[in-house]
Amino acid sequence: MKRILIRGITGSMGVETASMIISHSDYKLVAGLAEENLNVDLSRLTGLSKATDVSIFADLKEAVLSTKPDIMIDFTVPDGLLPALKQALDLGLDLIIGTTGLQEDEIQELKAYTEDKSATTMLIPNFSLGAVLMMEFASKASKYFPRAEIIEGHHENKADAPSGTSIATAEKLEKTEPFLKEEEIKYTIEGVRGGEKNNVRIHSLRLPGLMARQEVIFGGQGQTFTLTHNTISRSSYMPGVRLALDRIEDKSGFIYGLDKLLD
Amino acid sequence: MKRILIRGITGSMGVETASMIISHSDYKLVAGLAEENLNVDLSRLTGLSKATDVSIFADLKEAVLSTKPDIMIDFTVPDGLLPALKQALDLGLDLIIGTTGLQEDEIQELKAYTEDKSATTMLIPNFSLGAVLMMEFASKASKYFPRAEIIEGHHENKADAPSGTSIATAEKLEKTEPFLKEEEIKYTIEGVRGGEKNNVRIHSLRLPGLMARQEVIFGGQGQTFTLTHNTISRSSYMPGVRLALDRIEDKSGFIYGLDKLLD
Amino acid sequence: MKRILIRGITGSMGVETASMIISHSDYKLVAGLAEENLNVDLSRLTGLSKATDVSIFADLKEAVLSTKPDIMIDFTVPDGLLPALKQALDLGLDLIIGTTGLQEDEIQELKAYTEDKSATTMLIPNFSLGAVLMMEFASKASKYFPRAEIIEGHHENKADAPSGTSIATAEKLEKTEPFLKEEEIKYTIEGVRGGEKNNVRIHSLRLPGLMARQEVIFGGQGQTFTLTHNTISRSSYMPGVRLALDRIEDKSGFIYGLDKLLD
Amino acid sequence: MKRILIRGITGSMGVETASMIISHSDYKLVAGLAEENLNVDLSRLTGLSKATDVSIFADLKEAVLSTKPDIMIDFTVPDGLLPALKQALDLGLDLIIGTTGLQEDEIQELKAYTEDKSATTMLIPNFSLGAVLMMEFASKASKYFPRAEIIEGHHENKADAPSGTSIATAEKLEKTEPFLKEEEIKYTIEGVRGGEKNNVRIHSLRLPGLMARQEVIFGGQGQTFTLTHNTISRSSYMPGVRLALDRIEDKSGFIYGLDKLLD
Repeated sequence: MKRILIRGITGSMGVETASMIISHSDYKLVAGLAEENLNVDLSRLTGLSKATDVSIFADLKEAVLSTKPDIMIDFTVPDGLLPALKQALDLGLDLIIGTTGLQEDEIQELKAYTEDKSATTMLIPNFSLGAVLMMEFASKASKYFPRAEIIEGHHENKADAPSGTSIATAEKLEKTEPFLKEEEIKYTIEGVRGGEKNNVRIHSLRLPGLMARQEVIFGGQGQTFTLTHNTISRSSYMPGVRLALDRIEDKSGFIYGLDKLLD
Repeated sequence: MKRILIRGITGSMGVETASMIISHSDYKLVAGLAEENLNVDLSRLTGLSKATDVSIFADLKEAVLSTKPDIMIDFTVPDGLLPALKQALDLGLDLIIGTTGLQEDEIQELKAYTEDKSATTMLIPNFSLGAVLMMEFASKASKYFPRAEIIEGHHENKADAPSGTSIATAEKLEKTEPFLKEEEIKYTIEGVRGGEKNNVRIHSLRLPGLMARQEVIFGGQGQTFTLTHNTISRSSYMPGVRLALDRIEDKSGFIYGLDKLLD
Repeated sequence: MKRILIRGITGSMGVETASMIISHSDYKLVAGLAEENLNVDLSRLTGLSKATDVSIFADLKEAVLSTKPDIMIDFTVPDGLLPALKQALDLGLDLIIGTTGLQEDEIQELKAYTEDKSATTMLIPNFSLGAVLMMEFASKASKYFPRAEIIEGHHENKADAPSGTSIATAEKLEKTEPFLKEEEIKYTIEGVRGGEKNNVRIHSLRLPGLMARQEVIFGGQGQTFTLTHNTISRSSYMPGVRLALDRIEDKSGFIYGLDKLLD
Repeated sequence: MKRILIRGITGSMGVETASMIISHSDYKLVAGLAEENLNVDLSRLTGLSKATDVSIFADLKEAVLSTKPDIMIDFTVPDGLLPALKQALDLGLDLIIGTTGLQEDEIQELKAYTEDKSATTMLIPNFSLGAVLMMEFASKASKYFPRAEIIEGHHENKADAPSGTSIATAEKLEKTEPFLKEEEIKYTIEGVRGGEKNNVRIHSLRLPGLMARQEVIFGGQGQTFTLTHNTISRSSYMPGVRLALDRIEDKSGFIYGLDKLLD
């Protein structure tokens, strides 16, 4: 049974991940890291009734020596991230990292350090299986349906537009062709055709009652083919985290992106 | 049994309407008007196998005197429209007009002329029952869901954007409130929030495989409410034409818009 | 400012309603009723940070005498419901009741008692504005689109099928006609055409990742018209509760159903 | 330029295919086969204005000797199909066959005969690229989303239910798991959960205004992932026919199914 330590256990993704691991018999949550040694009842933190004997530490080395984890899962912030990851590798752990914000040179350094230690590091900026499948399928569909548009919708508190996933999806649609008559359209209201990336028009909705959804609509002669991903809670990331845990034993070296874990 | 004359019988809406009337036992198609006296087999024009004894005339007066219609349906062009309609009223006909493009003063003149003759004139710019219901329901829903966006999609040969129906719909959403955080969004691609009318964002898709569709998405706390109208053939206008025919006996005077015929 | 008492304040709907009222400046939450006098911090119960001076009582009379509410909102269970409602009317309160399960004769008794006291009682079995609008619009659309089917989808823990809302919707589609060729279909798998109510086929989906959604699809010549309601959290009922509160002053007597509160 | 003969040129798929080939500069339509030598103007048959010098024959051998085609496309009926295909192979043609209904032993015989002649035969029961992509993607998605349901909708004249494509799709979902609580549901209307194939529930809609559409909805923790294919005209098969024509030179031997032609 794999022994897991979660760095950032008191954040929202940390709590979700702790709940998932506790309810799963193949893994054992042995420790959490937080900004200070906490005297909290983890079962309360996670909303689970099951009693748990998980200690929460402020110091990584102390946590590892006390609880002997095999794997560290990291959901924190970019600040101080790389040194902590290197320390974990020094202590013999494999890594699953959901924290985003590492710079390109930091990523290269982490990769080299992982290989040097013969460890396994999974850097996964997006744990959503639905989003990963959407991008893979969209890329393939664009070979056969060369015209496509994306509609993404989010709640009204989202800070940016369009969503990062919609841009990443448009970048995968390498075979999408531009709409040649765009210039000939007579516009009675400006801006209705949305934004453009890689020949794909992107439309962003911001409405209460939406959490996160994305549609990629492919148009062909007499038919449309649509991929839709709809997310209603943060728990949707957990199957992706579980997939990473399930695959970590069969993998080695540095792995970047959830798509590398699909068959 | 109502006797019908179609002005513009060789155009695409004229042909659809002729087919509909021929297959309907409550109405009798007695004549068509076209640019010249045609020696065509109407059953071939309409694709119907049934033999028909419908004559096609170039002259309205000749057609009326020969075939004694009760009602004239007009699907033509604005050029020369008003004089033709007044001549038909002089000849004692009631009118159902699907032709668009009359100016506001011409509409007033037609209204006065109709009332003067104690006739019935239905001026129906859009015979789509789905579009009319969508506008009525959208108007009501906006009282209870004060945030809304419209997505309209059409084939790639549509000349303008957004669609006239989407603008007309947005104009009905009198209670829709603006999205207050629009200014705070950080845009990584410009234009993704679409065009704006009456506090409603409008997004236009242009793709092969689409004919004509419109979604109005209302967002509220924890829920969305969506009206969707999807059209796949021009025959979709026929139930609206039939509704006008069914209601013309109970109505009198000048009637503007299909919504006036709904209960 | 209306003074509100919530009976059943510790249940999930009670907590949602308490949160909503606390954050709304037109209403004042003055008391809650629960099974025992609770020494809880209501701000913690509702997840709100704002401190609140709301007392929670086990006895209705004591609560009313201490806190002088104008309106009682009830989200409890059918057991003991009618006597409690009558006691509240005796104490001079108006009522908004979201609890379901009263028998027809109890409803009649409540109505008579309300009128006797010259009070206002709103009995609202479903506070979802989206569901109420869907039923009203569906009823009207069925006059013009005489063929319809319903698809409802819920999470996997829902105890029954189809949903009560889908049945109530089908019952409103008075003009829907049966599909005449149903008997002629050659079935290669049994049961795919779903269940039937009032000439409407109902299809129930049960999948993880769904909370509650319903589509009513109307089919007509060359077009479809679809109403879709999608719910992602229990907070979606709050605008309906607020509507009841906003309208209670203008209403009197016994009111049954949220649809009676729409313009 | 490949020279094409269409067997069954007067049927609806034959006409569509003729139109497509005539408008495409890489292929030359040189002959059609029909039940009798026809003296028809092919441009009228296909609705194209372009004049064409395509002869229509009743006899295959005569057609081949006169017009020297490279490839025969077959859209006919199972009756007499195998002998005609073997005759075409004898005459040195490669084959693209859209006709369905060959028995398993006939398919094996055709395969052996093709290999014996060192020819290329593509037997393609479904030319819809959208349907083929849907099945491929659905099969892959079922590995990561182990619960799925299918909703297929068709016009009211479809003879069978569910659609063949929905059954074929369900058969590809090898990893889909049954809904374990199915037995516990309390049914207030029977039959609402649809039909079942391979642990997948299938729901069939039959409504006017629909042509052919299919949704496969995958449900996972907190998210749904949906594949939707919507067809509005028979021309939607043409990109699949063109793909077969484009790939026939690079392929040899017996090829069964459009999916074998995707990269």
